[in-house]
Amino acid sequence: MELLDALNWRYATKKMNGQAVPQDKVDQILKAAHLAPTSSGLQPFEVIVITNPEIKEKIKSIAFDQSQIVDCSHLLVFAAWDQYTDTRINRIFEHTNAERGLPASATDDYRNRLINLYTTQTAEQNFEHAARQAYIGFGTAIAAAAELKVDATPMEGFDNSALDSLLNLSERGLKSVTLLPLGYRDEPNDWLVKLKKVRKRKEEFITELN
Amino acid sequence: MELLDALNWRYATKKMNGQAVPQDKVDQILKAAHLAPTSSGLQPFEVIVITNPEIKEKIKSIAFDQSQIVDCSHLLVFAAWDQYTDTRINRIFEHTNAERGLPASATDDYRNRLINLYTTQTAEQNFEHAARQAYIGFGTAIAAAAELKVDATPMEGFDNSALDSLLNLSERGLKSVTLLPLGYRDEPNDWLVKLKKVRKRKEEFITELN
Repeated sequence: MELLDALNWRYATKKMNGQAVPQDKVDQILKAAHLAPTSSGLQPFEVIVITNPEIKEKIKSIAFDQSQIVDCSHLLVFAAWDQYTDTRINRIFEHTNAERGLPASATDDYRNRLINLYTTQTAEQNFEHAARQAYIGFGTAIAAAAELKVDATPMEGFDNSALDSLLNLSERGLKSVTLLPLGYRDEPNDWLVKLKKVRKRKEEFITELN
Repeated sequence: MELLDALNWRYATKKMNGQAVPQDKVDQILKAAHLAPTSSGLQPFEVIVITNPEIKEKIKSIAFDQSQIVDCSHLLVFAAWDQYTDTRINRIFEHTNAERGLPASATDDYRNRLINLYTTQTAEQNFEHAARQAYIGFGTAIAAAAELKVDATPMEGFDNSALDSLLNLSERGLKSVTLLPLGYRDEPNDWLVKLKKVRKRKEEFITELN
């Protein structure tokens, strides 16, 4: 399977060489994240694609100075909804029903159950739920990059609040959760590329109940 | 790209036909989840694979009676660590260093920083972080199933505490986060298979900062 080959090929690239990823490959990676499944199809996250060198420099300085942030060509920021609201949920349902040629009210029972569920949870609970959905898209983008032989480094190590402020995410009702620099490995200068990929023992990962 | 075709092919199957997924395909799907990246490589989740019909029936009754749980051949339960502990972190680091032929102390600075980080966070913060990592593996398993033309239904709608209790997950320091039934679509009886796959508008998903 192509995906397994890709997952074996990829690693969390520690040093990138500055070479640019072609736009059509970036587009395919974003398309994969866009197609990733989410709970009730709400897609409660967005992706900010940064090529601007000054913005990348500023992000590097609030992300432990990780060099991939400036040595990548495209820096993806995954940002989740800070909250589920009836407005947001209605917008998704209206769009979906219209695209399917269904009446706006077609799925009202389900929609209302969702609105009731989310509006009785705290903003923090809702954000955590939205963040998990973003991680599905994040994982899917990582897999897509690997299938295209594009290197990527999944990153959680940055100052989320500072990034939200830098990118005006709060005003848009978003909170950053992860970074994904896309680029190409600088093999001679990357200490990790030479090390064996290790996963925990299969028996510590899988339990079968037959 | 094979992955994009797979993501377009898949959907959250609502009715499965009871046909069994061959073991080698299940193994590849599990392998993909096992290879998925996680923060610092800690892999803070496990997968329980259930084929036992009685256990599946019990799970169906605590999961809104969703029929896929019994009509699938293999039900995957993704369960995240309830907490990061020094024991768990040390175990992973010792295994990784041994596999790489490095001294046990090779990455002590990094290991100790992680232990300090996680042991000063609450159990709830740590569980939420572990759950996000599980979602990367969950998303990767969904993509793998689709590449193999195996149907799957990502599910969050179940009584997590009841499932933890049924599977004795708490005793193992785990908390269930998602279900993934694997099987084959019952096309004539699945209302969703006929509907157009819809995602939100690209401009509501992607922002470019050039």
